[in-house]
Amino acid sequence: MVAQVIDGKAFAAKVRAQVADQVAKLKEENGITPGLAVVLVGEDPASQVYVRSKGKMTVEVGMNSYEHKLDVDTSEEDLLALVEKLNNDPAVHGILVQLPLPKHLNEDLVINSIDPAKDVDGFHISNVGLLGTGQKSMVPCTPLGCLMMLRDHHGSLSGMDAVVIGRSNIVGKPMAQLLLGDSCTVTIAHSRTKDLPDVVRRADIVVAAVGRPEMVPGDWIKEGATVIDVGINRIERDGKNKLVGDVDYASAAARAGAITPVPGGVGPMTIACLLANTLTACCRANKLPEPEGLTA
Amino acid sequence: MVAQVIDGKAFAAKVRAQVADQVAKLKEENGITPGLAVVLVGEDPASQVYVRSKGKMTVEVGMNSYEHKLDVDTSEEDLLALVEKLNNDPAVHGILVQLPLPKHLNEDLVINSIDPAKDVDGFHISNVGLLGTGQKSMVPCTPLGCLMMLRDHHGSLSGMDAVVIGRSNIVGKPMAQLLLGDSCTVTIAHSRTKDLPDVVRRADIVVAAVGRPEMVPGDWIKEGATVIDVGINRIERDGKNKLVGDVDYASAAARAGAITPVPGGVGPMTIACLLANTLTACCRANKLPEPEGLTA
Repeated sequence: MVAQVIDGKAFAAKVRAQVADQVAKLKEENGITPGLAVVLVGEDPASQVYVRSKGKMTVEVGMNSYEHKLDVDTSEEDLLALVEKLNNDPAVHGILVQLPLPKHLNEDLVINSIDPAKDVDGFHISNVGLLGTGQKSMVPCTPLGCLMMLRDHHGSLSGMDAVVIGRSNIVGKPMAQLLLGDSCTVTIAHSRTKDLPDVVRRADIVVAAVGRPEMVPGDWIKEGATVIDVGINRIERDGKNKLVGDVDYASAAARAGAITPVPGGVGPMTIACLLANTLTACCRANKLPEPEGLTA
Repeated sequence: MVAQVIDGKAFAAKVRAQVADQVAKLKEENGITPGLAVVLVGEDPASQVYVRSKGKMTVEVGMNSYEHKLDVDTSEEDLLALVEKLNNDPAVHGILVQLPLPKHLNEDLVINSIDPAKDVDGFHISNVGLLGTGQKSMVPCTPLGCLMMLRDHHGSLSGMDAVVIGRSNIVGKPMAQLLLGDSCTVTIAHSRTKDLPDVVRRADIVVAAVGRPEMVPGDWIKEGATVIDVGINRIERDGKNKLVGDVDYASAAARAGAITPVPGGVGPMTIACLLANTLTACCRANKLPEPEGLTA
């Protein structure tokens, strides 16, 4: 079997186009423009790149983008005051505080000071709790993107055996909740799992979210399974820098039914889902029906 | 193999004795008496029995018990006002609103109005979120009781294959989080699971929490596995009323390494864990070290 490649770049473009359509409709019919505020503290180069592309895409889909760039020495008090101001600003429907924060700032405290209804990253403990009890919530962007790709490929996921490798708070655990919400039988595997190859071999759906380059070889993949590779690992090979996933792509693609490449798979979906979440938050804030197909 | 019987009644008595010791110490060394407030709305007979035994055992371990019995027609406003009063009462360290509530009252709203630090049932979405991100929380009593029994029997659970059957918010899902926190490889199975016998047969630990009498037969159990039966089902057999679990006890006990009976297994642990949670909440409120071995 040669796997169908799940083109995350194309799918993300489609999601952004859906968001743009809905935004245009919101403006026309309700006179509302969704707004996303992104807060960046300090000058971490990777974070600057992310914030820039988030801002760019926010504007491209017709939303307002508010960027707040704070000095690396910003006090917790000042940061919390800014978040409070954004919480109370009716033009701001989504708030994202770019992580990691400088060490003198308490990330949990800052994230949990965001109004849960505006927490478009889905990291506030209230959103974790809502997701964990099957209620409407803001869903973390990366696992939401994976879910959208899986639903698009399979239609219903009900009854499928899904294995999530990795138990991080931002990918593995919410991914497991989402798959459970779609009625998969869900197994969460991790570094302490005894026989990982055997566990992965059972899976109709494998989501790899560990952050270890090419740790899942093809012979762990059940023939015909769908493989979602969340890893984005920078390695050097043959003297060149290269991005690879947590899955060994070539050998896995020879067995899987469908697979996401790295780059161009899960990666592009994350920002698309951030925009989708901002739109969802805006609709909820205005008591309008939620856009279809853009959330869990 | 004939399974070792995990005696929940004896274990619960041991937990209550530990709680009583710690309560005595708290009184002597710090002049503090933990207090548990239980709120009952209406006259559901089963709820009345539960509330009565909770009150009795609370007093037996040396804590203060505050029972609030409200008329079945109590308005949401009045109930929320009572919860608010208890939230602000420094003598109350734990608050439990007995479920189910009469239909005109919104359970989610009421539960989420409890101060999360006093939410000894662990149902507040903030506690679900804290547990779901591996942080200190109030842990729901029934899965906490199961975890304590498993730790007592096995010592470390790290690397064990655990299968939780059932995905309810009060047992299945928090149980999965707790087993994951103890580094099990965790599978959550449910009514949509395709080949449940096969899934259960992989498990070193089976937690059955479905509410269907004797639905798990012995031949689904791996030789030597530990079986925790959360089900408490009332059936009629040979003209007599009988309590049975979700597991067919006789056939499962012939294969398991250890098993909890029904009655006398998980059941008695629930109230013991409620008392443990109240003690934990009291210690946290007073910035004292948490009692060892009584929480996740």
